[in-house]
Amino acid sequence: MKERNASASSAEKQAAGIAAADLVEDGMVIGLGTGSTTAFAIAEVGRRVREEGLDVLAVVTSYQAEMLAIEAGVPLTSLAEHPVLDLAIDGADQVDANLNVIKGGGAAHTREKVVAYSAKRFVVVADDSKMSEKLNHFVPVEVLPYARELVKKQMIDLEGVPLIRMASRKDGPVITDNGNVIMDVEFGTIEDPAELYQRLSACVGVVEHGLFLNTDEVYVGRKGGAVEIIK
Amino acid sequence: MKERNASASSAEKQAAGIAAADLVEDGMVIGLGTGSTTAFAIAEVGRRVREEGLDVLAVVTSYQAEMLAIEAGVPLTSLAEHPVLDLAIDGADQVDANLNVIKGGGAAHTREKVVAYSAKRFVVVADDSKMSEKLNHFVPVEVLPYARELVKKQMIDLEGVPLIRMASRKDGPVITDNGNVIMDVEFGTIEDPAELYQRLSACVGVVEHGLFLNTDEVYVGRKGGAVEIIK
Repeated sequence: MKERNASASSAEKQAAGIAAADLVEDGMVIGLGTGSTTAFAIAEVGRRVREEGLDVLAVVTSYQAEMLAIEAGVPLTSLAEHPVLDLAIDGADQVDANLNVIKGGGAAHTREKVVAYSAKRFVVVADDSKMSEKLNHFVPVEVLPYARELVKKQMIDLEGVPLIRMASRKDGPVITDNGNVIMDVEFGTIEDPAELYQRLSACVGVVEHGLFLNTDEVYVGRKGGAVEIIK
Repeated sequence: MKERNASASSAEKQAAGIAAADLVEDGMVIGLGTGSTTAFAIAEVGRRVREEGLDVLAVVTSYQAEMLAIEAGVPLTSLAEHPVLDLAIDGADQVDANLNVIKGGGAAHTREKVVAYSAKRFVVVADDSKMSEKLNHFVPVEVLPYARELVKKQMIDLEGVPLIRMASRKDGPVITDNGNVIMDVEFGTIEDPAELYQRLSACVGVVEHGLFLNTDEVYVGRKGGAVEIIK
């Protein structure tokens, strides 16, 4: 899905990423998410550091974000040093009308959720192809490899259709930055995200699932380059 | 490389895999490697377990091998229970005239090497596209993520050209089943594999590299389905 839209929507992604990067102020400690839209935000924060002398420290959510931030010249820190973040910026696989979000297409949602919940303000950046009245995207679930059959059973009990995500640049399954596997679980249309959130969180062997209910704002890049802010 | 040859050489791979699976005898504890050729061996061992009542226990080298072995009905054990294996069967990215091998295209070479060195007999299965007078394939190196810049510098000191392997079903780098990253290092033609082996092994931050010098036999699937055994 992400790859199919990659070139068609990169202008929209860039507009959203740059707009969100403008929220960063001198002295802030920020969280940097993962994915192609957030990458534009990271690049823009880096530009502001280099060209405007912006004074910022960032906590990353993945090796990808770390690599991009270092390349862009954004100074890094950790949640150990700075447990409370002023702002976190991250992407989404899908956003509903109530700003509930599904994440995890990049297999980074566990650390992304830790960073989002550590932030006073959590801003999602997305192109308009990600917006949907209701959530109906599969939910990525990070799973302890040791528990994968148990988690599979629990997903079926929740009427989900689980599928281990397989890798293509290594043999076998995708392994997350935390050393776990990803189960993509199809639930059809999710009528009650809050209920599913609780039920997925209660599953034994689930490290973290891709539902996010704490989004403060969404910056949506529209066709033509306008950015709509939804609160 | 593997994908390019996948369909053209699958008959050769299958012939080699089945021939090697014939080495398995009642009562053996065996090691099962990773990759498309070994997958045929695993399937054949499973067939012999189901149809011939073959009594065998297997140690796997990856989540992929584990999944395939369970699917094929091969009973599993661990190196903790069985530290010495009677036989290990595994694939290769490239094999030279002295049976030196480069592995790691599937990002599984660390556990594969542990299994190979735990085995009394290490048999490599390959199709004939993998055979080369000298080794000139890049060498996959598994690297502690924390040490990747240090390892990069050491690879350059060894006149290698290192490249972090990026994933395509997750954002950022490929992560191994052990939670580390892969650096694919181009050394051109490797004139002295034993020397490079020692120098790579001495690098700090390297978990394990893809050079194998302990191959006992190679089962090569040739065009037309014949299998040549090289010792």
